[in-house]
Amino acid sequence: MARTRDAEQTGPARRAEIISAAITLFAAHGYRGTSLAAIARATGISQSGLLHHFRSKEVLLTEVLAELDHQTLESVEIDHEYEGPALARAFDIVDAIVARNQRNRELTKLAHISIFNFDSAPEAAREWAQIRLRSFRADLTGLIEQGISAGEVRADIDAAAMASVIIATISGLEEQWLQDESFDMVAAMRGLTTVLRRDLITAGE
Amino acid sequence: MARTRDAEQTGPARRAEIISAAITLFAAHGYRGTSLAAIARATGISQSGLLHHFRSKEVLLTEVLAELDHQTLESVEIDHEYEGPALARAFDIVDAIVARNQRNRELTKLAHISIFNFDSAPEAAREWAQIRLRSFRADLTGLIEQGISAGEVRADIDAAAMASVIIATISGLEEQWLQDESFDMVAAMRGLTTVLRRDLITAGE
Repeated sequence: MARTRDAEQTGPARRAEIISAAITLFAAHGYRGTSLAAIARATGISQSGLLHHFRSKEVLLTEVLAELDHQTLESVEIDHEYEGPALARAFDIVDAIVARNQRNRELTKLAHISIFNFDSAPEAAREWAQIRLRSFRADLTGLIEQGISAGEVRADIDAAAMASVIIATISGLEEQWLQDESFDMVAAMRGLTTVLRRDLITAGE
Repeated sequence: MARTRDAEQTGPARRAEIISAAITLFAAHGYRGTSLAAIARATGISQSGLLHHFRSKEVLLTEVLAELDHQTLESVEIDHEYEGPALARAFDIVDAIVARNQRNRELTKLAHISIFNFDSAPEAAREWAQIRLRSFRADLTGLIEQGISAGEVRADIDAAAMASVIIATISGLEEQWLQDESFDMVAAMRGLTTVLRRDLITAGE
């Protein structure tokens, strides 16, 4: 007996398929230029089937952004073996994230458009971005504080301020590169991480 | 004999008056929320008179952004006496710019909305932003290179990369603060300039 396509897949697999199609279409045509109908078509389900999984295009966008973050972190963690103090390892990961983003222009652009268009970005994307910023800042702050406790990082710095600077530089360099594709943001990011390694990391290399 | 208001003022004075009104209205209502008609009304001239000075709202916006930059630089240069190596002085100015922007939330927001909305910012504003980025980067690169030549700055850094990092940090910290007004971007910026002073400036203090 033939079953419908919707019945063949479990919820999580179907969700993943929709997100994957959305990433491809958003990257090609932008958030505004992609309709829910087009995503449904690419996934081979009905638009109401899609809305069963994601109640709006905004909600789907936040899932896409979360998935991009997830993929980025997976790719940089899997590609390399890291050694030395935790903060030095974090700098390696930051450099790798910027390199990965430089290879994914449309997706990086999508993230900036979705998050930093302060007057017109989807509300759900902005909320998600705030949570992501707090989480990223807290993780990096914790890592720096651990380094201070372990005697690997100089103790006279403001860990939260430094975490914010690193996040700001990634974002600001991406903006420069989105303005001018010939700009090498990977080299620039390494300019910062080199200084921070030299100045902040005091031991354990 | 009574003269019309248009005839009382020279072109440059009238232009300055229009830009000033546009800054006030853009800051209060945003770029999209402000019509040319409203700016004309606030300036007491006709809309066609306004279009004689600025051929579109986009062109007026680029003049507003240029004027904001000009005011920012004037204010930070006038407020303080700076001493020491040129690069150390530049770090003082950078810290002062961030502090000034933190006191001007609506205008800072206006600049970000106008420049970094990569899919919907006015074309003229984006072009202006590219010119501004190149100019800001070239100035800062030149300053760092001068410091290297003068033996005040360590010679093994990529001056252009470092200039890009400083500009990126300003912009990225502003984004964090536009996402969350309680974030202290002045303290965070000082976190970076403190590290850069310590690591890059080798002599002359």
